[in-house]
Parts: sequence; structure tokens; C-alpha cells
Amino acid sequence: MFSVTVRDHIMIAHSFRGEVFGPAQALHGATYVVDATFRRTHLDADNIVVDIGRASEELHAVLDDLGYRNLDDEPAFAGMNTSTEALAKVVADRLADRIHAGALGEDARGLEGLVVTLHESHIAWASYERSL
Amino acid sequence: MFSVTVRDHIMIAHSFRGEVFGPAQALHGATYVVDATFRRTHLDADNIVVDIGRASEELHAVLDDLGYRNLDDEPAFAGMNTSTEALAKVVADRLADRIHAGALGEDARGLEGLVVTLHESHIAWASYERSL
Amino acid sequence: MFSVTVRDHIMIAHSFRGEVFGPAQALHGATYVVDATFRRTHLDADNIVVDIGRASEELHAVLDDLGYRNLDDEPAFAGMNTSTEALAKVVADRLADRIHAGALGEDARGLEGLVVTLHESHIAWASYERSL
Amino acid sequence: MFSVTVRDHIMIAHSFRGEVFGPAQALHGATYVVDATFRRTHLDADNIVVDIGRASEELHAVLDDLGYRNLDDEPAFAGMNTSTEALAKVVADRLADRIHAGALGEDARGLEGLVVTLHESHIAWASYERSL
Amino acid sequence: MFSVTVRDHIMIAHSFRGEVFGPAQALHGATYVVDATFRRTHLDADNIVVDIGRASEELHAVLDDLGYRNLDDEPAFAGMNTSTEALAKVVADRLADRIHAGALGEDARGLEGLVVTLHESHIAWASYERSL
Amino acid sequence: MFSVTVRDHIMIAHSFRGEVFGPAQALHGATYVVDATFRRTHLDADNIVVDIGRASEELHAVLDDLGYRNLDDEPAFAGMNTSTEALAKVVADRLADRIHAGALGEDARGLEGLVVTLHESHIAWASYERSL
Repeated sequence: MFSVTVRDHIMIAHSFRGEVFGPAQALHGATYVVDATFRRTHLDADNIVVDIGRASEELHAVLDDLGYRNLDDEPAFAGMNTSTEALAKVVADRLADRIHAGALGEDARGLEGLVVTLHESHIAWASYERSL
Repeated sequence: MFSVTVRDHIMIAHSFRGEVFGPAQALHGATYVVDATFRRTHLDADNIVVDIGRASEELHAVLDDLGYRNLDDEPAFAGMNTSTEALAKVVADRLADRIHAGALGEDARGLEGLVVTLHESHIAWASYERSL
Repeated sequence: MFSVTVRDHIMIAHSFRGEVFGPAQALHGATYVVDATFRRTHLDADNIVVDIGRASEELHAVLDDLGYRNLDDEPAFAGMNTSTEALAKVVADRLADRIHAGALGEDARGLEGLVVTLHESHIAWASYERSL
Repeated sequence: MFSVTVRDHIMIAHSFRGEVFGPAQALHGATYVVDATFRRTHLDADNIVVDIGRASEELHAVLDDLGYRNLDDEPAFAGMNTSTEALAKVVADRLADRIHAGALGEDARGLEGLVVTLHESHIAWASYERSL
Repeated sequence: MFSVTVRDHIMIAHSFRGEVFGPAQALHGATYVVDATFRRTHLDADNIVVDIGRASEELHAVLDDLGYRNLDDEPAFAGMNTSTEALAKVVADRLADRIHAGALGEDARGLEGLVVTLHESHIAWASYERSL
Repeated sequence: MFSVTVRDHIMIAHSFRGEVFGPAQALHGATYVVDATFRRTHLDADNIVVDIGRASEELHAVLDDLGYRNLDDEPAFAGMNTSTEALAKVVADRLADRIHAGALGEDARGLEGLVVTLHESHIAWASYERSL
């Protein structure tokens, strides 16, 4: 199994609901360093998993819709705790939608899986892994 | 599949028995930067894998029983080479015991797997992965 | 010249005023991974720059007054752009006040300088350096 | 499942054929920071996955045949795009050949899997995973 | 003293002349992860060292003239060993020229110093520091 | 001013004397990831700060005399707390002795300064800086 990973980041504000979150119930924020991993069993005709330039652009486009925002104000996240793990799924699902819509080209249809990891600090990160 | 990882560290002394270990047969030591990864298919009612604060506390408690010690003197490791990979299993199994005893709360009973990685330097690390 | 550095982090929300900030004029947030470096020419009687445990505690205390907050609502920052570099100075000055007040003990009075670095992402960070 | 990872690096020149590669069609180069991960279900008689010293030596030997070269001139890669992911497979397969030939010793015959990751920059890396 | 650092990277091919370089006398290549640090004593009217967006763009522009090339073929480097430290100076001097030409705006004229660091691997890097 | 840095590591056991060290008064250990930085104003005839291969070898030789040992048993450290900062000075001074003895060659006599940093964990490190 092959994989290629590209890294980017976003900076957002948000708050959490639920006693378990303690002081993080207050409005605060995070830098998420985001890794998107693309997986497939066989390389394409160019001997690659995915065009790394286009993969970076698509990840950047997905993140552009999230960054420099207060996620508490985003209709898409109404009533949802935007935890690091939940946001990892949001990014992965939006990337998957783009891949299925052909954004990474015909060859990228051979992609089989996707992992998205959001690093919220040097001591904590979360991932979501899905098939394509 | 979702995961959350928290990082901490310990500093220990130990020695190894067996020619394969070369100079590491002498008493020496290590800093282990320890990553504990918690996995589950579905998020809990708070939209998280695990309370990251409590996960960090439990990892810290497990490491507190190992750190600032000469592992050669620990009865728990009598006759055992405390290799990085073997210690990864020790940490994972002790964390699993705590999870099963309810230390991470009721919601954490949905956890399905655990990976513990010990980084012994910038060029070597070891992991142990188990189900819960 | 000797130095010791300890690392911690905070997660905050804020916004910026000024065209130069582009999309960062909107409410967003950041994780700052914070490094505090303590400098002195001669080690103390214990052969150290500073008690690393107490240094970590003091850094943590300074960061506790900043983290899990919307900095736009903090009276201390009224009318001020809380840029990464400006916050580095805030952390350094507050640490210096604590050192001068004796928080790191008598031996720490031999400290001569302080550098605080805030990493806002994997591709950008800022520092403030001052004497003590 | 246990694993041990060792890290090394190579510096090579190469070029790519195919429009998808854009400016990377020109002769350029890369530093690949290379991680080789060795996996097995049960530890050996010394309580380890593999002799970390010998594993490092074998990885170094494999990389020595690749580094400080223009890969475009290597007969082994004639007509092949030496993408990061393709090179990960080359390193993994050559390591596997050495393991099968006994280079890591008798105990290493218990190894079950291998993952090789090549980091081409701080924002992109690729992996190849195989069984042994 | 304040500083802001931004990170980017280039991938180049080159070779060295001189016995001291050993196997690196052959055509090979490198990824350089490049950090550019901007220093000044006083923050500007926006409370920043430099517009981090523009600083990143200028660094990127300087690197664009170097990346995806065989440096042995560049007239600018004829007869010169393009060592990591020498390239750090090239990047710093070109950035300085742009700053002096006003590329970072009027406020950036308050910048006093520049440090450029090129990381050639996880175990080696080089810097060049100059005033502005 | 130019600099070149090379990285290596050691794994040692030791203990500390003094209440300030708390639990670290017990025999424990550390991995020190060691960075040695060589500085000079002008590059040598080969356009480098120092032969990076020889610099790495000399650092390795210095570390070889420290690693895989219990520092409490070393006559050189009798009655001395081998704190991270104190060990940084030991490594720097031993490297300086080798440079003065010509170990890095004639051209290395142009070196003006040395910084040695020992990372004891992901959240703490110490440096010693000296002239040559």
C-alpha cells in the first residue's frame, strides 16, 4: 500500500459545550496543522499516488473555507462541538467529495483511502480515517 | 476510524542483557517521549474520542510509576529487557487496565484500540498497538 | 553563556485591526507553542541555570492568564493588536516580573536574559528577547 | 503488534517526465529523510523487534546505493519516474531482500511487515507498506 | 529585540568541487527547508515586525528563482560551491535587496537584521546572519 | 556571520544532588539530542564553515566518551551535577579542544564560536555558547 501526505494549517476560533471541556467552554481558538494522507494499492501511470501539487491545492481550498473564522458562527457546525477529531472528519469528508467530483483528475479515482490528522499543539493531535 | 493522541515523557535508567545490545549492556538511560493514541469508530455524546485532559492525566499517572527510576531495580521488570518496544507494551497495557477500570469515564468504554509509541531519540522509536 | 529553555502552549481567540492583516481581521484563533529561554553567564550553586521544574511552573502560570480566552475581551490588551511578536513580549515581561519578585528563587537572581518564542504554526513564529 | 522505526537520509538529483510534474520536470534534487518501520506480533528472545543497530546499518547500506547520485543516470531506474512514493517501495523492497537473505539475523525472520516513509520536505512525505 | 520567522523550501540539484566534499562531488541534490528571520528593536504602527504574509511572499519569490534547478547550470553560481551556508547568504542578500527596494512596504524599513537558515536534513543545517 | 550545525545523540544514566532536583535525585537517565553549531565570519577556501562530515565525526567522538554510561561513575564528573546545561559545556569544551588540536583541519582554525545544545525532551533543552 502506497500513501502520500501533504501538510497545511488553519487558525480558527471556537468554543465547546459540555462540562468535560472545562476552561475550553470559553471562546478560545487553535492553530490546526493539518496532514492529509492519500492511499492506494497501485501507483498511477505517472508512477505517483496523486499529483502532490493538486493535492496540496485541494487541501488548501478545503481549509480556506474553515480558516480565519469563528466556527461557532458557521451554520455548517450549528449545535456541533467542533473538536479536533470532529474537524478531522469534516476535512476528510470535504476532500473526499472533491476527489469524487474529479478535482484531483481521472488518475486520482484509483485512490482508496484518506486519513486527515489535525495537530492542535505539540502534545495533542487527532485523526479521521476513511475509505474513498 | 477516529483517533486522539496525547504526548508526555519519562526519563529512566536501565541496562540490557544480551550480546546484541553491545555498549547498551552497560547501565545507561533514556528519555522516552511517549505518544498514546486512543481509537474508536464513533465519537461519544460530546463529539470526542476521549476527554483529552483526562487522557493526558492517565498517561501521566502511568508514566509517573516508571519515570525517575532505574528500571533494573523495579520488581515488575525483573529478568526482563526493558527495550523501547517492551516498555511501549507496558505503558499500553497499564493504560488499558485504567480504561477498563473506568478511569476515563463511562463514555471511554467505546474506545476500541490503543497505540503507544516511545521515541528514544530523533532517529529511533518503537510502538505497541492493541485492542481494548 | 548558558541557557535553559522550557516549552508549553496556549490556545486563544483574537482578531486584528489594520488592512495589513487581511482575513485575520476576522475573529479567529491560534495555538501558540511557547518556548521560554533563560540565560546566564555562570551556573548557580546547583550547577544549573534555573530550576527547570519551577521555570516550567512559572511559564505555565503566565500562560494560564492568557489561555482559553478571547484576547479581544481582555482589558490588558484593549486597543492593541495581539500579534505573535507582541504576545511574545507580554509573556517575557510577565515572566521577568515574576523572576524579579523572586518566583524562581534566590539563585535565579543571577539570570541575565530572557527570550520568549511563540510558534503560531509549523511555518511561522516570533520572538522577543530582553535582559533581566 | 510491535514496531521499531529507524531514521536516516539521502540526498539525490533527478527529474520527472510527465506534464503533471510541472517545474519538477527539470533536473532538480531532494533530501529524503527516510524512516524504516519493522513490524512483528511477538518480540524475539531478546525482547526486541529487531536489533536496532543492525536495522540502522542495513537501512544505511540500502541508502548508500542511492545517495549522492543523479537517479536519472541509474540503470535500475531507466524509464521510471523516481517519485517519492516509488522510491519508498525501492527502499522497502531492497530492505526486504536483505532481511530474507538473513542480514538482520535469525531472530529477524519473525518480522512480518515493513513500512518505509520518505519525507521530501516539511510539508510532504510518502510511504510504502508491505508484508515480509 | 523582536523577530518574526517564516518557513518555506526548495528542491535543487548541484555538485561540489573539492576533495573535502567526498561523495558529494558527484551530481546530487537537496531539499532545503528555509527559515527567514526578520529582526527589529521596535514594532511598527500595526504592532508587528513585518507583514507575515508579504514576508512569506518575498521569501517564496526569492526561492522561486532557485528551486527546481541544477545550480551547477546557473550563471549566478559559476565557479562557486553552492554549499548550504553559501546559499543561506544568497537567500539573505536577495531578501535584503528586496526589502531595501521596498517590497515589504514602508514600515519594513525599520527592520534591522536578517537571519536565513537552510536545513539540508534532520541532522544538518546552516545559517547566515546580516544587518539590514 | 555564518554557522553550520550538526546533530547527534547520547543515552546516559545519572542522578542529581540537591533538593531542587526533587525526584531527579534518584538514579534515572536521559537521551540528549545534541546540536553542535560552528560559527565564523568568513567562509573558507571551499566556501564552507567547516567540513560537515568531519564536524559530525568529531561530535560523535566526543559523545562516544559520554554515551552508554552512568555519569555518576565517571571520574571526570566526580562531585559535579551533570545537568543538561553543564553537559552542554562539557561537550562544547571538548569539541573546542579538538578544534584547537587541528581535528577539523587547517581551515577550521577560522572558526570563531561554538554553541552546543542538549535537548533532554520535547519540552526542555539547554545550551552553552563560547568563543574559539
